[in-house]
Amino acid sequence: MAGSSFGNIFRLTTWGESHGEALGVVVDGCPAGLTLDVSDIQAYLNRRKPGQTKISTPRKESDAVEILSGIFEGRTTGTPISMLVRNTSQHSADYSEIANYYRPGHADYTFDAKYGFRDYRGGGRSSGRETIGRVAAGAVAAKLLREFGIELIAYTKSIGPVVIDMNKFDRQAITETPTCMPDTSASVRAESYLADCMRSYDSAGGVVECIIKGVPAGLGDPVFEKLDANLSKALMSIGAVKAVEIGDGIDAAAHHGSENNDSFCMENGKVTKTSNHAGGILGGISDGSDIILRAHIKPTPSIFSSQKTVNKQGEDIEISIKGRHDPVIVPRAVVVVESMAAITLADALLSNAGAKLEYLKKIYDR
Amino acid sequence: MAGSSFGNIFRLTTWGESHGEALGVVVDGCPAGLTLDVSDIQAYLNRRKPGQTKISTPRKESDAVEILSGIFEGRTTGTPISMLVRNTSQHSADYSEIANYYRPGHADYTFDAKYGFRDYRGGGRSSGRETIGRVAAGAVAAKLLREFGIELIAYTKSIGPVVIDMNKFDRQAITETPTCMPDTSASVRAESYLADCMRSYDSAGGVVECIIKGVPAGLGDPVFEKLDANLSKALMSIGAVKAVEIGDGIDAAAHHGSENNDSFCMENGKVTKTSNHAGGILGGISDGSDIILRAHIKPTPSIFSSQKTVNKQGEDIEISIKGRHDPVIVPRAVVVVESMAAITLADALLSNAGAKLEYLKKIYDR
Amino acid sequence: MAGSSFGNIFRLTTWGESHGEALGVVVDGCPAGLTLDVSDIQAYLNRRKPGQTKISTPRKESDAVEILSGIFEGRTTGTPISMLVRNTSQHSADYSEIANYYRPGHADYTFDAKYGFRDYRGGGRSSGRETIGRVAAGAVAAKLLREFGIELIAYTKSIGPVVIDMNKFDRQAITETPTCMPDTSASVRAESYLADCMRSYDSAGGVVECIIKGVPAGLGDPVFEKLDANLSKALMSIGAVKAVEIGDGIDAAAHHGSENNDSFCMENGKVTKTSNHAGGILGGISDGSDIILRAHIKPTPSIFSSQKTVNKQGEDIEISIKGRHDPVIVPRAVVVVESMAAITLADALLSNAGAKLEYLKKIYDR
Amino acid sequence: MAGSSFGNIFRLTTWGESHGEALGVVVDGCPAGLTLDVSDIQAYLNRRKPGQTKISTPRKESDAVEILSGIFEGRTTGTPISMLVRNTSQHSADYSEIANYYRPGHADYTFDAKYGFRDYRGGGRSSGRETIGRVAAGAVAAKLLREFGIELIAYTKSIGPVVIDMNKFDRQAITETPTCMPDTSASVRAESYLADCMRSYDSAGGVVECIIKGVPAGLGDPVFEKLDANLSKALMSIGAVKAVEIGDGIDAAAHHGSENNDSFCMENGKVTKTSNHAGGILGGISDGSDIILRAHIKPTPSIFSSQKTVNKQGEDIEISIKGRHDPVIVPRAVVVVESMAAITLADALLSNAGAKLEYLKKIYDR
Repeated sequence: MAGSSFGNIFRLTTWGESHGEALGVVVDGCPAGLTLDVSDIQAYLNRRKPGQTKISTPRKESDAVEILSGIFEGRTTGTPISMLVRNTSQHSADYSEIANYYRPGHADYTFDAKYGFRDYRGGGRSSGRETIGRVAAGAVAAKLLREFGIELIAYTKSIGPVVIDMNKFDRQAITETPTCMPDTSASVRAESYLADCMRSYDSAGGVVECIIKGVPAGLGDPVFEKLDANLSKALMSIGAVKAVEIGDGIDAAAHHGSENNDSFCMENGKVTKTSNHAGGILGGISDGSDIILRAHIKPTPSIFSSQKTVNKQGEDIEISIKGRHDPVIVPRAVVVVESMAAITLADALLSNAGAKLEYLKKIYDR
Repeated sequence: MAGSSFGNIFRLTTWGESHGEALGVVVDGCPAGLTLDVSDIQAYLNRRKPGQTKISTPRKESDAVEILSGIFEGRTTGTPISMLVRNTSQHSADYSEIANYYRPGHADYTFDAKYGFRDYRGGGRSSGRETIGRVAAGAVAAKLLREFGIELIAYTKSIGPVVIDMNKFDRQAITETPTCMPDTSASVRAESYLADCMRSYDSAGGVVECIIKGVPAGLGDPVFEKLDANLSKALMSIGAVKAVEIGDGIDAAAHHGSENNDSFCMENGKVTKTSNHAGGILGGISDGSDIILRAHIKPTPSIFSSQKTVNKQGEDIEISIKGRHDPVIVPRAVVVVESMAAITLADALLSNAGAKLEYLKKIYDR
Repeated sequence: MAGSSFGNIFRLTTWGESHGEALGVVVDGCPAGLTLDVSDIQAYLNRRKPGQTKISTPRKESDAVEILSGIFEGRTTGTPISMLVRNTSQHSADYSEIANYYRPGHADYTFDAKYGFRDYRGGGRSSGRETIGRVAAGAVAAKLLREFGIELIAYTKSIGPVVIDMNKFDRQAITETPTCMPDTSASVRAESYLADCMRSYDSAGGVVECIIKGVPAGLGDPVFEKLDANLSKALMSIGAVKAVEIGDGIDAAAHHGSENNDSFCMENGKVTKTSNHAGGILGGISDGSDIILRAHIKPTPSIFSSQKTVNKQGEDIEISIKGRHDPVIVPRAVVVVESMAAITLADALLSNAGAKLEYLKKIYDR
Repeated sequence: MAGSSFGNIFRLTTWGESHGEALGVVVDGCPAGLTLDVSDIQAYLNRRKPGQTKISTPRKESDAVEILSGIFEGRTTGTPISMLVRNTSQHSADYSEIANYYRPGHADYTFDAKYGFRDYRGGGRSSGRETIGRVAAGAVAAKLLREFGIELIAYTKSIGPVVIDMNKFDRQAITETPTCMPDTSASVRAESYLADCMRSYDSAGGVVECIIKGVPAGLGDPVFEKLDANLSKALMSIGAVKAVEIGDGIDAAAHHGSENNDSFCMENGKVTKTSNHAGGILGGISDGSDIILRAHIKPTPSIFSSQKTVNKQGEDIEISIKGRHDPVIVPRAVVVVESMAAITLADALLSNAGAKLEYLKKIYDR
């Protein structure tokens, strides 16, 4: 099945394996006339690069992006934007062993069950490197959204038991702390927690939160293409995400209607809400408040302590994974969550252009 | 935007408003040769009917389904199955008042923001009655899945603070308790809790869980069409769902890799797992274990106590909602969750038929 | 496969069999705010009704359409428009015989090859009655296009050897002649030709031409979603169409570049062309000239003279088809061609709304 | 709009401009396990290369393809196959002049009308080089089809007034004549005709025919996804194609039903037809006979004689096109037609896997 595309009008198609020649993405449907150059993309990709801190894998990947099409004289032309990152830090030998067994928590077994065999080198298509294409496309989407005053802020909300304090929210800290937490003191505690994890050959999970500001009311659709449904798919399609929340999310289910309902009120002549338990979406359509979402990410499955599993010959064996692995995926997932959210919003923005006759009359005024 | 369809190969398109002539669904892509009749569909629709217990709205809707196409001599023909339910219990007058203001927690405001106006009668397209089409299609999907030994069990996991005890799991209780809980004593406590809610003109939320048994390993796709991503979209597209979990879900993010990883082992010559924290999906592809998912549902937004809001003239007002409303949506959402999960699985089952050359050779063996 | 939908943004899904309960269509993605009522639809459906002249089957079908959703207070709401026509003139007994053999030129054999069995009554899903849904949707599309000054004129260009004289073009004659020819004298000759066909128990084919006026330059896409590619699919998806031409079509291939190229020139300050060999489309995108297309339609396969074929038992047999059949499909196909062209244009109009940043800025001007 | 993808299950996405960095394609949905290497692709691309004969442009393009993903140990893995061709023979200066005016018969004007500006170098996205992605994907599709005994043969049927004689059909001549005609004497006449065209600074059109052998009965869908509808779109989406025919095509419309109907008969215990006017498709579904289609291609619009047009300043001007242009596109379009037909068939083959319960039972036999 052709399952590597996402989005209806603003649509990306990613391709590539961890240890193949390259990874990349084709972004189709981006409107013509958007100022865009390679630095816009590289800035996003740099945020997901490994080897930057002691809590991430020491692999050094330059991940330099090349734009191959769709831009002319500094602006998008309306035709597909093809972007590519060459793989340069491949140590396929590191992975030869895993060709023969199924790592717990990984997709080795399910790939074999589905396709009959797999590119086992570094996880192949199920590697975290698959997100390179998402992030490159996310950079395009985010640039497009900024033209309409829409801005995304994603950050680490928690790692293991360490949760940020929203009262200490410091936006700059997101890109400055190794954890991508907007709370430097929480970040220090998280680093210490991760150091403990690494000492015990173990790993940790955590939560990424994303806030989207400046979204006009009216984006999204009332039934299957609900904005929250698509955001949910977008986030859950990121490897290792096991739960997605919108607004109060799980908490909403435990409260009364009188507590959970957000009252509407007038503010400066515009309809707004006195609270935002809904997280900016009502009936699948944006309501003009901040959109708030959270992705819950499982601990890195690649741990160095000994684990039981089976091999391709159907024998029970005990393994101990080698190689270079992050003790936590969460900080590197922050830009991926932000990218997928941006892509979903960009698609909703474009999709909404045909929602009413009035919009079309503005375009085709002859 | 054409947002009323779901699924790629097994695809449904729903239509209809709460107080329009009728609601319905077209199921396209169902394989030919499946035994199917109106009773298969009606049995599912009866599970979502209101007016059945004291904790649901006293509206009486017969919701009798008519199959208009796609079946011949008791079997599906491979062409679209069109199904329709006439609206018979319309009291549009009840809703005339809401034409002029925006109910908190509802989609009134966002519909107006998107489309410029709305069919306000009973919530129009954003009414819970929109799920009639989903459930009718879900009945078809579930029947198809049973041909392959796949079975779905959905139930209420919690209502407000009342959570079922899985040790007391009684499958029969799901259809016998008014709460759709598989634990009769929890159900009694939940009913009492809901009675309190109603007395204080308030409402409650809760959680629906769905277990899917008998899924072969290999369904789903590794990137955007991950089985969990599609299940997540499927569930989040149901009105009032605010969070979705797969397997351990939110809990997974708080544990170590050594705790969260499921070991593989051999059992009767087949690969299986010693635990199921993953909820039956690894890397977006089913692993042969039970698939487990949860939808967190917000409290009914229609409450009888007084609320602040604005009207279409842009004035702050105070309202008090009248009409017939369930104090909790959860029990009626159980069959909707089950239906959406069944539809997603049926689509994955069909999509997987082209995954490898070996499958196609079995089909086209000449 | 889910093959009963057409269009990306303006999308229809048809359903129904010739002798089933009903036939219908769901139109999803129509913008909100379009004035629409049942008479708009019925007017189109009446143009495809049989039993109106001596050159069409004497079946009397009222084909009264019912709109079930998507309209409120006389305007489209942006949600799916579901429309239905009940089958009332079913004589299934007429068709019992064909259950057992394969009619030449029909889809009986291919349906059995694909699905294993078929609803043989009146051709089931492959009946010309399937076009009811297309025409109902086409009426919506045409109404939408008129809002933007786009108008479609389809007519019979030829029947058998009788071709209209474009110098005698009389638009009113299209709806007044039984042949739907815009040339009354050609129509008389065609009727006489068809009378001969019927006397010899035979049938005829012909050509439908469609001209689309008022299309702004810029609709369509440069690669796979070329406007002519989609129009071509739209027309070829109508049963019995065997060839499609755009502009000069087949003639273009026999001419020199110097003859076929249309020169651009300025007219009243606007870019236009001095000729229109291209038929209004260059590189897949409308150029502002009239769009011109032709569908070539095979002779009715149901003929009363004796034919050789095989039955389901694999025996060579000789048959002679009974029942009520048009000696030519062409006149009734005129409104179907017009409808499919309208649907394709409506989809292109909506799709184009996201083509450039400038358009989106007009919509989202805050 | 995201218009650079084609196919539902077997889906390609092309990208790239004539004078950009590179052109390429992502093929998603190809089943795992197909033996494939770079020579399979290069063999197809070599067939569309220019500069090979005196009747084609003297541009020398190596068009060496690189496979970047989706293959492991010589077989497809089921994940996207990304392929790329670097542009090496760019003379952008040749095209600087056309930045300012609209060439007759080209998409310059319509691109500006749609997107506001365009990459004018060598036609940008509307260049014939865009077909590189189609041909690379077509090579994959053709290799897949061969696994099922399906074979495609495309060739030049006519150039200007020179038509091949099917009685002299010599398959080897297709790749040996510069015209890609399977009739060497016709080819000589066509070359002479083209030499005349070139002398008079003019160009010619022609017809490509494609025969598909070994297609099992049952591929395609009965309504919008008819096999002939999709083939029609596939062919009409190739730049310069102005008409498409299936089987007898245009001729069918001029004959009687008794002449056009193909009788069924038994042959070696199998259902077959005594003739093939239908071109192998009945009711949108393959009938087991050869599929026959024709694409009518307009004369090359780039001619060296003087032409009238307008410039971007809205002035009437006279131009004379320079550069390197083929006097006829037809021979180089042969492999493009074959590729698009192969892609459409591969998609139909995969789509059909879910047509009936019986097929799925063969796959999921547990």
